[in-house]
Amino acid sequence: MSSPVSRPHHLEVHLARRPVGEPRPEDFAFVRATAREPGDGEVLVRNAWMSVDPFMREWMHADGYAPPYAVGEVLTGEAVGEVVASRSADLPIGTTVSHFAGWREYAVLHRDAVTVVDTALAPPEVHLGALGSTGLTAYATLTRVLPVRPGDVVYVSAAAGATGSIAGQLARRLGAAKVIGSAGGAAKTRVLTEEFGFDTAIDHTRGRLREELAEAAPDGVDLTVELVGGEHLEAALDAARTGGRIAVVGAVSGYNATGPLPGPANIFSVATKELTLRGMAVTSYFPLAREWTELAAPLLADGSLRSRHTVVRGLSRAPEAFIGVLRGDNTGKMLVRLDI
Amino acid sequence: MSSPVSRPHHLEVHLARRPVGEPRPEDFAFVRATAREPGDGEVLVRNAWMSVDPFMREWMHADGYAPPYAVGEVLTGEAVGEVVASRSADLPIGTTVSHFAGWREYAVLHRDAVTVVDTALAPPEVHLGALGSTGLTAYATLTRVLPVRPGDVVYVSAAAGATGSIAGQLARRLGAAKVIGSAGGAAKTRVLTEEFGFDTAIDHTRGRLREELAEAAPDGVDLTVELVGGEHLEAALDAARTGGRIAVVGAVSGYNATGPLPGPANIFSVATKELTLRGMAVTSYFPLAREWTELAAPLLADGSLRSRHTVVRGLSRAPEAFIGVLRGDNTGKMLVRLDI
Repeated sequence: MSSPVSRPHHLEVHLARRPVGEPRPEDFAFVRATAREPGDGEVLVRNAWMSVDPFMREWMHADGYAPPYAVGEVLTGEAVGEVVASRSADLPIGTTVSHFAGWREYAVLHRDAVTVVDTALAPPEVHLGALGSTGLTAYATLTRVLPVRPGDVVYVSAAAGATGSIAGQLARRLGAAKVIGSAGGAAKTRVLTEEFGFDTAIDHTRGRLREELAEAAPDGVDLTVELVGGEHLEAALDAARTGGRIAVVGAVSGYNATGPLPGPANIFSVATKELTLRGMAVTSYFPLAREWTELAAPLLADGSLRSRHTVVRGLSRAPEAFIGVLRGDNTGKMLVRLDI
Repeated sequence: MSSPVSRPHHLEVHLARRPVGEPRPEDFAFVRATAREPGDGEVLVRNAWMSVDPFMREWMHADGYAPPYAVGEVLTGEAVGEVVASRSADLPIGTTVSHFAGWREYAVLHRDAVTVVDTALAPPEVHLGALGSTGLTAYATLTRVLPVRPGDVVYVSAAAGATGSIAGQLARRLGAAKVIGSAGGAAKTRVLTEEFGFDTAIDHTRGRLREELAEAAPDGVDLTVELVGGEHLEAALDAARTGGRIAVVGAVSGYNATGPLPGPANIFSVATKELTLRGMAVTSYFPLAREWTELAAPLLADGSLRSRHTVVRGLSRAPEAFIGVLRGDNTGKMLVRLDI
């Protein structure tokens, strides 16, 4: 398994065309490729796990907020794998690394483009989940963007997802008095209270998000971690107490939209309730990654911080996993396992 | 003129019915009333000037954000006047005071409900304008809510109005590198550059607010003072640079709306550009009033801070003045002069 392979034939997933609305299997193409020889300072990595994330849908728009994926080219995203050939002395064969060249079985990467993963701290896939960007998003939001204050009533949307499930648990550790989460469906809301320690779980598919938020937080919400957008952001604005804070982190509800979603009609409550809305892009907080890993790894190891993965097996099913994460099929982090 | 009058007959303006859309004269009723005798600790004030402000339109909604005005009762708002009868030893006859019992010619007020106005610092009406709540709004926004940073590119909407005109000048004094304002019509935009020192003035009635903002701030806007809402807030979100701040202070465009206005469709740029939106309600900053008065009065006196008033004469024309301020008929502070 870990013997050197110099120029392996392998599969890559390309963007065949830009999806309109919800992505369809035909939007993706599986392309056979041959990895090139690693050059000086480069390594060949065999990917073991890759991440599918809602932000990737934004990158598929020609006018998305990020440099978009190009049609006809291989997709990218977080992955972890093992060095199987190396021309970088400090990255010997067998080293486990994380990088951004997912959606393919093998990748040739410069040593500056990979991060060594400490598998003694946590299994490789956890470095894509709780210890990866989604966990870091929760940590940076609650410690840097809009820090939790002791006694806060905190509300997290998409709370059963990769970021939300960590955010809820972190809010509690950072001194929140009450932690409320919303998710879609009875199964996911049950996980919120039974596994992730939320005080109250709201199933937004019942259509009473605003009412149930008002019941759960009769004096209003101090801090919201907003990951859904649309009606969820409106509900968060309604639920906020005077002086409340809302971290605007995600808008998964809008990523498949074919045009701009309506904005929150109650936006003026920002003025009347003297709210603070603050956005975050996790890339700005990558320098915190080590701090977060060192804090979180022992908590994950002893079970005081819990993370869940929804695992799909095989690169051929990566599009399906990606479509699923946009639908909210996952509990915790949606991952694709490549090496089986 | 300043002789004691114990129970004067006088005019009050009542809310006859809740306006639908733009207020109409029939929404107001002029009622003859007789002021009661001042009790212990109370004074009788003859109002000289009163303020009409956009927030009053919000208070006319049954479901407005503030305790609404009651139908059939006298309206309230900022006013200045002279004590003409007193049962409070520290408020002798002849004292000029400000208070919140506008929309009437006389008011009986407890000493705790009035503030002595120093007419040596500035004429009485200036205490309703640059030294009053609208000027304080600009000052608190730019020093407390989202402080100006040296070198900022600042954008102010409704910039020819009472708050905007002070905000633009203050931003410059506090270190802004460039100050851009928008207003409706050629006359008002001319005042922005010629009188209030804005670098660039945009006439939004030309329908090119976004484009002209992008031209005026090619690297983006650091700090926006947003007073209009609706499309203006959307334009501010578009114009913001990464890490930019937007003070959400007013939404005059929506106050006459008969239903919720569409929210900003580009709200998710809060996340992608890592923006901070922060609301403010001036009532939370009333403790800064003395600090602001002491800073601003000498600047107003020597002309280094300029303020304008649009004056309507006579309480009978107060509804007209109020309707006008919602239409943007004013340059600077819209005031009603009562004592002529």
